[in-house]
Amino acid sequence: MTQQQAKASYDAQDLWQKDKNHFIHPFTDFSLFHEKGCDLITDSDGIYVEDVHGNRFIDGIAGLWCVNVGHGRAEIGQAMAEQATRMAYFSTFNNLSNAPATELAAKLAELAPAHLNHVFFSCGGSTANDATIRLVHYYFNRLGKPTKKRILSRTNAYHGTTYMAASLTGIASNNWQFDTLDLVTHLSEANCYRRPEGMSEAEYCDHLVDELEQTIERLGADNIAAFIAEPIMGAGGVLVAPQGYHSRVQAICRANEILFIADEVVTGFGRLGHFFASEAVFDTQPDIINVAKGLSSGYAPLGATLISDDLYAVLSTPQGPGGVLSTGFTYSGHPVSCAAALKNIEIIEREGICENVLEVGPYLESQLKTLASHETVGDIRGSHFMMAIENVANKTTKALLPVEARVGDRVAAEAQKRGLIIRPVGHLNIISPPLIWTRQVVDDVVAILDEAFAATTRSLKADGYL
Amino acid sequence: MTQQQAKASYDAQDLWQKDKNHFIHPFTDFSLFHEKGCDLITDSDGIYVEDVHGNRFIDGIAGLWCVNVGHGRAEIGQAMAEQATRMAYFSTFNNLSNAPATELAAKLAELAPAHLNHVFFSCGGSTANDATIRLVHYYFNRLGKPTKKRILSRTNAYHGTTYMAASLTGIASNNWQFDTLDLVTHLSEANCYRRPEGMSEAEYCDHLVDELEQTIERLGADNIAAFIAEPIMGAGGVLVAPQGYHSRVQAICRANEILFIADEVVTGFGRLGHFFASEAVFDTQPDIINVAKGLSSGYAPLGATLISDDLYAVLSTPQGPGGVLSTGFTYSGHPVSCAAALKNIEIIEREGICENVLEVGPYLESQLKTLASHETVGDIRGSHFMMAIENVANKTTKALLPVEARVGDRVAAEAQKRGLIIRPVGHLNIISPPLIWTRQVVDDVVAILDEAFAATTRSLKADGYL
Repeated sequence: MTQQQAKASYDAQDLWQKDKNHFIHPFTDFSLFHEKGCDLITDSDGIYVEDVHGNRFIDGIAGLWCVNVGHGRAEIGQAMAEQATRMAYFSTFNNLSNAPATELAAKLAELAPAHLNHVFFSCGGSTANDATIRLVHYYFNRLGKPTKKRILSRTNAYHGTTYMAASLTGIASNNWQFDTLDLVTHLSEANCYRRPEGMSEAEYCDHLVDELEQTIERLGADNIAAFIAEPIMGAGGVLVAPQGYHSRVQAICRANEILFIADEVVTGFGRLGHFFASEAVFDTQPDIINVAKGLSSGYAPLGATLISDDLYAVLSTPQGPGGVLSTGFTYSGHPVSCAAALKNIEIIEREGICENVLEVGPYLESQLKTLASHETVGDIRGSHFMMAIENVANKTTKALLPVEARVGDRVAAEAQKRGLIIRPVGHLNIISPPLIWTRQVVDDVVAILDEAFAATTRSLKADGYL
Repeated sequence: MTQQQAKASYDAQDLWQKDKNHFIHPFTDFSLFHEKGCDLITDSDGIYVEDVHGNRFIDGIAGLWCVNVGHGRAEIGQAMAEQATRMAYFSTFNNLSNAPATELAAKLAELAPAHLNHVFFSCGGSTANDATIRLVHYYFNRLGKPTKKRILSRTNAYHGTTYMAASLTGIASNNWQFDTLDLVTHLSEANCYRRPEGMSEAEYCDHLVDELEQTIERLGADNIAAFIAEPIMGAGGVLVAPQGYHSRVQAICRANEILFIADEVVTGFGRLGHFFASEAVFDTQPDIINVAKGLSSGYAPLGATLISDDLYAVLSTPQGPGGVLSTGFTYSGHPVSCAAALKNIEIIEREGICENVLEVGPYLESQLKTLASHETVGDIRGSHFMMAIENVANKTTKALLPVEARVGDRVAAEAQKRGLIIRPVGHLNIISPPLIWTRQVVDDVVAILDEAFAATTRSLKADGYL
């Protein structure tokens, strides 16, 4: 990391002021924003991003679980420019289509588990999940089962921030002073680190499955439409469920005509070494899989909902004269976004990026685990390129530090000082890099983190928190 | 329109089959889709689009109220490619930002009415409206007025298709077999053509305002959060409200602490000759204005919510330690989408596109009105580049043709045969072109429509509908 002059093309002070005056940022802590405004990320290259002052960082979060093929891919930009110039946009409503959306739908059907052959496009994960719930309710209405409406989600799940997606989300702090819809019941998250004392992982799995069965019993299967889950819970803490959890849940759902929805917005497109993790990693065959983020590596807004042949048969039953399936977005199947995704998938295949994750991922896991000796490091978990470190005050009791110690922020700031961006989420730090990290990069990153955790311990002690 | 060979780079039959097998289109009539699949729009240039067989059409719908600066703008594609290569994506959460989003937020604040200085980004109109309702509910919760939750919308309003946006939407057929949320009360649309017999336009305005007052009285102002309306209702039929309607509605809202939200997804960015129509055309000062579509001319998915200084003061009040405004999307302020919008706005300003609309718009209106003599043409309405023609069986009684006559589809098909795409919506045909049409193009279009309406009358007679 070197302090250079601001890029000639940007006036850093002017941008900072405009941002502070006019941009309402998502998930903003206004007490910080009013005081110090934003850091502007203006440049990027491969595994690196650069701020407006020319400080260069290893991007340890892939933008936000997004930039799977890495930054600065001129060929994606070129594909977008060509499509934008040739045919930037035309409606996909009313029996109209375009070439990139069609090609992408076919490609996704090819990459997805065999029974998922139908694609509904949206603009990102929130709209993919939101549209899914609308379609699921429509599905049961068409089947003449209008009471099947309730959705089972899990505490600490993250499914986005449309009104419906935020209601699916189970992170309590996310909905502080926001309203949610009373259509969702949240089961416990699968949190192996904080499972009840004395319970084995297998017993914990039984415990969670038992809770599901009791909940179905209590609510009545006739009132439940679907179960939605991230294969590995992402923003809620990179929580890996106990062995067999997902397939057992799916079996129970199937027995109760409850649709099984996999939110693969984070796990899809290579983060766990496969385009889709549901079947390849977790041995499930979801009725619906949602993807976004890695689908376009974040180069353009895009989401997709993959729907099974069985569901499609119902959804596509004609409604009678003039009747249409009245849902979808102006930008469903946007030509330029789809062109970006096609090029992104081509790169993933051509460069063997899933193979890189399968090879380097276990190395990242094992090297991060060398940080376990730090005083605050309670748990190091995740899989492949989706990892988190949970900070605690006491490793034995797993007691947390007080919120005002801002331990996640401290670690992130110490890492950033040393040229690495990782994501603080409460007591956690999340590492979800571009999928092109090599073993050498892993070594560099772990060396930075080693220093960052040591410095954090020192600062926590200096401030009386340890 | 000439029939050429399929473009060398596309296999028309292969694309058609892939589309039919894999792409779930929005607003699809599956009885038609299963039979004939989709027409693929593959190329474009200025006011034209071309299908995969090389048939060229004048685009009379701007993609879908989107492509305001016209098709094939290489400089927008280039701006997108440059941004995608320089820095395609990084999070705007947690005090991070990027240059194009910041510049765009400042530019929107400059273009919008003076009191609207704060911008919340989303991916299109649906997410802009959805996020708005979430923020409005949050706003009243923060003010300690948690009962102010109900939203007033209008029948035939179109506000999108997230679960919440679809609930705001008041087009009954749009929600056939879909569920909606019980958070919205729909007032009557302002439909001058079908206003009660014998009522003057001024009396009709009184009548609508009276309904609003009675509704507030009935529900209680303490239970109502906001009123949302398109300045001119779009997909619901291009309905122009009576003179003074919007400003009177706003005054009543203000007196009852009901926020006034303008959905300018269609009317914004030049369609009525101004970047924002609310103040310039309708003399209102909304608390919130939503834009999308023309914001990027559809070259990239993007929506924006412009928020007043007064609202921002509440939304940006810090929540206490670690508290964040927990809403927003991964792609809020997407650098590439924002770069497309900045270039789009530059083109609108440089080429005087608003001025073109102010000059050619009234000519389009007057020339379309020459079609009034056709037997089925009941009403020709709208403003500037936002026009509709309503077809009827009887001009005196205004009785409609039976649904199965598909009159809108017939007119659209006859126009398309003659090289013009317009949009059928039930009994209506909507004309919402790129904003670069000249008087000569208007003359060509009206000549085609003259033939299309004549042919439609003949075919309706041949089929016994007239």
